[in-house]
Amino acid sequence: MRTIKLIIQYDGTAYCGWQEQPNGPSIQETVELALAKILGQRVRVQSSGRTDAGVHALAMPAVFKTESGIPLKAFVDGVNSHLPDDIAIQSAEEVPECFRIIGGAVAKTYRYTVYNHHVRSPLCRRTSWHVRQTLDLAKMREAARHFIGEHDFSAFKGRNCSAVTSIRRIDEVNIQRNGHLITIDVTGGGFLKNMVRIMAGTLVDIGRHRFEPEHIVLLFEQPERRLGGVTAPAQGLYLLNVQYPAENHSEY
Amino acid sequence: MRTIKLIIQYDGTAYCGWQEQPNGPSIQETVELALAKILGQRVRVQSSGRTDAGVHALAMPAVFKTESGIPLKAFVDGVNSHLPDDIAIQSAEEVPECFRIIGGAVAKTYRYTVYNHHVRSPLCRRTSWHVRQTLDLAKMREAARHFIGEHDFSAFKGRNCSAVTSIRRIDEVNIQRNGHLITIDVTGGGFLKNMVRIMAGTLVDIGRHRFEPEHIVLLFEQPERRLGGVTAPAQGLYLLNVQYPAENHSEY
Repeated sequence: MRTIKLIIQYDGTAYCGWQEQPNGPSIQETVELALAKILGQRVRVQSSGRTDAGVHALAMPAVFKTESGIPLKAFVDGVNSHLPDDIAIQSAEEVPECFRIIGGAVAKTYRYTVYNHHVRSPLCRRTSWHVRQTLDLAKMREAARHFIGEHDFSAFKGRNCSAVTSIRRIDEVNIQRNGHLITIDVTGGGFLKNMVRIMAGTLVDIGRHRFEPEHIVLLFEQPERRLGGVTAPAQGLYLLNVQYPAENHSEY
Repeated sequence: MRTIKLIIQYDGTAYCGWQEQPNGPSIQETVELALAKILGQRVRVQSSGRTDAGVHALAMPAVFKTESGIPLKAFVDGVNSHLPDDIAIQSAEEVPECFRIIGGAVAKTYRYTVYNHHVRSPLCRRTSWHVRQTLDLAKMREAARHFIGEHDFSAFKGRNCSAVTSIRRIDEVNIQRNGHLITIDVTGGGFLKNMVRIMAGTLVDIGRHRFEPEHIVLLFEQPERRLGGVTAPAQGLYLLNVQYPAENHSEY
């Protein structure tokens, strides 16, 4: 039995998220159906994590198992020819059977993009959150430092989050402005449901002086969702990359 | 009578181009109808130039005349509230009646974007041309230098171009690679129909060694369209900016 790791890029606009849902097509189902065209049978594709409806991924890792001996190239070019234009396999590699797509990840990086201008942008509308009021980046960066380390992120999780613990580790939060675009890059050990979107929403609320930067500290001490900032909309969020310990495998 | 200059941004994907056509909605018509909601009557909006079906604009200048005394802010925020989300007025300013939107421009800059990777990108599909074969940027830059100056661009114009002369001036061609994205920025006095797309297509043909860089020189000496490169697809092209002589007006 072979274990194949895929890297998948997608524009999440038209999907209900990674995972199958009754209310629309999922990335997972769409990938599984395209893969079935190549393999001749449906297999389960397990991703490194779920993304919400409308969230994008530059590089989502996922694995499946197969007895098929077809070359790795077929899992990229072959599967892509059966996928719609908003999803594409970027690479395929064979990994050891013991490879753990969920528990094995070392770190994940998400990017949240804000379009910060008094007028909206048609060209950035699908890939950013439009915030009219000029944001105070110095305050946002001051606040971002408080996220670093291990904390109880209960104030930063979506209502129906099913995680056993809300303790998460954040390694880095990097905020940059380029013209009207502000990017918030967050790297950490793992994330709760909606966590990056609530972190971004709270940072934006601090940038528009709704809260002081120290409000983040209070949210760790008094971890209640109602005390946090808004949940930033899905279209501004991208999964950039998931890191696994370095190994050597064949890859296409 | 006031003359109002607008700067308009649009995602051209859903339109037949700037100018009204029988085969689909135009940017011009859509802007005129939104403006009519504010002015109470339809006025003609004249742009700095036309863009083809599917071509985008970061900042397209356009003017209209009106007797209305309503503030400039209404031509931005008011009109935007009547525009679909793929078009937005970025700014409005009052200019002298003698302002010439077409003849008065000093230079225009277009950007053509190529996604250069063996696998397609869902996230860049609407805004770039996917070219699989790795392009030779050194050859493309060598070729780009030949465009600078005044030349007969007959080999670089679309079949139904109605321009009186094919002589055009190119000031700068700047080619950059950032990851898998290659941008070709072209600044010049004015452009023929499809000219930037044929320039980009010919540069890409040089980057994949279909032609030598000196082929550009031959295309000026023997100006025949059939000897040039492919016409790069519309979705990779953006009008970045049109320069006018500096003046002082009130602006919103």
